[in-house]
Amino acid sequence: MPGHEFQRIARLAARFGRPPAPDVGIGDDCAVLFPTGAVVATVDAAVEGVHFRRDLLSLEDASSRAVEAAASDVAAMGGDLEGVGCGLLLAWTFPVTLSDDDFDALARGAQRAAARLGARVIGGNLAAAPTLTLTTTVLGRAPAGQLTRGGARPGDVVAVSGVIGAAALGLHALLAGRGGDANFAPYVARWRSPRARVDIGRSIAATAHAAIDVSDGLAQDVGHLAEASGCAIRLFGETLPMLTDQRAQAAALGLDAVELALTGGEDYELVATGSRETFGPEWTVIGEVTEGAGVTVLEAGVARRLGAGWDHFRA
Amino acid sequence: MPGHEFQRIARLAARFGRPPAPDVGIGDDCAVLFPTGAVVATVDAAVEGVHFRRDLLSLEDASSRAVEAAASDVAAMGGDLEGVGCGLLLAWTFPVTLSDDDFDALARGAQRAAARLGARVIGGNLAAAPTLTLTTTVLGRAPAGQLTRGGARPGDVVAVSGVIGAAALGLHALLAGRGGDANFAPYVARWRSPRARVDIGRSIAATAHAAIDVSDGLAQDVGHLAEASGCAIRLFGETLPMLTDQRAQAAALGLDAVELALTGGEDYELVATGSRETFGPEWTVIGEVTEGAGVTVLEAGVARRLGAGWDHFRA
Repeated sequence: MPGHEFQRIARLAARFGRPPAPDVGIGDDCAVLFPTGAVVATVDAAVEGVHFRRDLLSLEDASSRAVEAAASDVAAMGGDLEGVGCGLLLAWTFPVTLSDDDFDALARGAQRAAARLGARVIGGNLAAAPTLTLTTTVLGRAPAGQLTRGGARPGDVVAVSGVIGAAALGLHALLAGRGGDANFAPYVARWRSPRARVDIGRSIAATAHAAIDVSDGLAQDVGHLAEASGCAIRLFGETLPMLTDQRAQAAALGLDAVELALTGGEDYELVATGSRETFGPEWTVIGEVTEGAGVTVLEAGVARRLGAGWDHFRA
Repeated sequence: MPGHEFQRIARLAARFGRPPAPDVGIGDDCAVLFPTGAVVATVDAAVEGVHFRRDLLSLEDASSRAVEAAASDVAAMGGDLEGVGCGLLLAWTFPVTLSDDDFDALARGAQRAAARLGARVIGGNLAAAPTLTLTTTVLGRAPAGQLTRGGARPGDVVAVSGVIGAAALGLHALLAGRGGDANFAPYVARWRSPRARVDIGRSIAATAHAAIDVSDGLAQDVGHLAEASGCAIRLFGETLPMLTDQRAQAAALGLDAVELALTGGEDYELVATGSRETFGPEWTVIGEVTEGAGVTVLEAGVARRLGAGWDHFRA
């Protein structure tokens, strides 16, 4: 590693601080953690030109977003990032021409997300590369009996947190050059600054039967849940939770809001199954688990043909 | 994530198998681990064109090498990867044009390294990108009182495992178009197929005072050890362990073998400090820890001026 990068690591170490002893954080060969109970581990990459573009997203937001997207997988297991034995490893690759200002923007974004999540940055790796890539490893803590994708059973309801399709609508507004329009502002904000739903995941960890986060697109992610559980899932298109003017704003871009909600992705909400009383006011029941296989979306009793999932920028 | 990648994940899941319950491996949002004692966590990226080139290294070797290089950091903490709560997360980015044969070569390489290390692949991430990047997160297990860079003290000897500079000589032979010469074969093999020195690290974990792996170059890595420990380190150039004909083969390429051993990097050997009796026959004593700061290399009592460290391909 070139000497310049050691100075940058020192700046990261100063920014992110030391974990409480006996844990060992940034600066040695490995972080050392003393967890209690189950560790949940996941990794996610955000690649410039594939997952984000600098003309649509500041580097600070890109970096915060990369951490939140990775942490979303921990939320989907009903875990959190705040405990003993938790932490983030930031593996960043970037061209050698990346300025110190840009580097600091990346550091600020990761710090913002880490602070929001109550997580510590415990290590990472900096490497030269033609492409800016932000790869985040998250070590979280799972409750007793962690939540997987595989526990859905016939008779469960399917519920989703928050609203769906708003992030994808924001991205479409940006791609159409209308990201600055005031009416698209809440949608653009949702695409730029997603938040891993750790609290919401934790709140159902003990009672829900199965969960996954909505990253690739609701229909596709629900499909994973159905497959892992060996069940069929039926969604009701009319029930998908949206912002008040979401249908109108989608139409203004020539888009179908339900299609976008089903296939758009990057909402980083949670979709879970269980008994109806599991799901509080942050949740909307959108379907049911039945015997069989696959995902069907019904609207006024008629099955909708599903488009392809979320292919990032390369449609 | 495009649907094609789910098929590739399924192939990886079939290849790498399931960890024993209650652990959860590939296929859910996170891996779930139930460690005992301390977890050591590290991440390392291998970027095509920076850390390897396909004309010099097969994709299978590149992938194996990426895992071994990441695991080397665990070796340097005196840890291992075989226990409960250990595992590998493979985050790979590659162009959408990567063939299935190439993808399988990457999978075979990771499998080879994982098998050698006794490690399980428990998760990962596949993403499209302009650049092939192999980012490996390693979760290992540390012994009681793990080995850091910060424990060297005046009066310690400095010892290194194996031989030093052979990998860099192999790379220089490849870059000079002489990688096929029989006399360079052992050097090329060392560059192409490094092995994390996990067993050797474990053997000194309880008795050594400090350790680091030789990835960037011996002088630079020893410098990190000196700095973290608040000591000076003096190395004796004549004592650096090399293969029998290493000086002659370096000279045949117009290179100085000692310079290459000090700055070449990518040996993935361990350098450690402690009392002389800590170090068995796999080790060579190459220096001593004194009061002060910085690294000096003496040859016949005269200080050598050190060149720059290892800057990968961008010299």
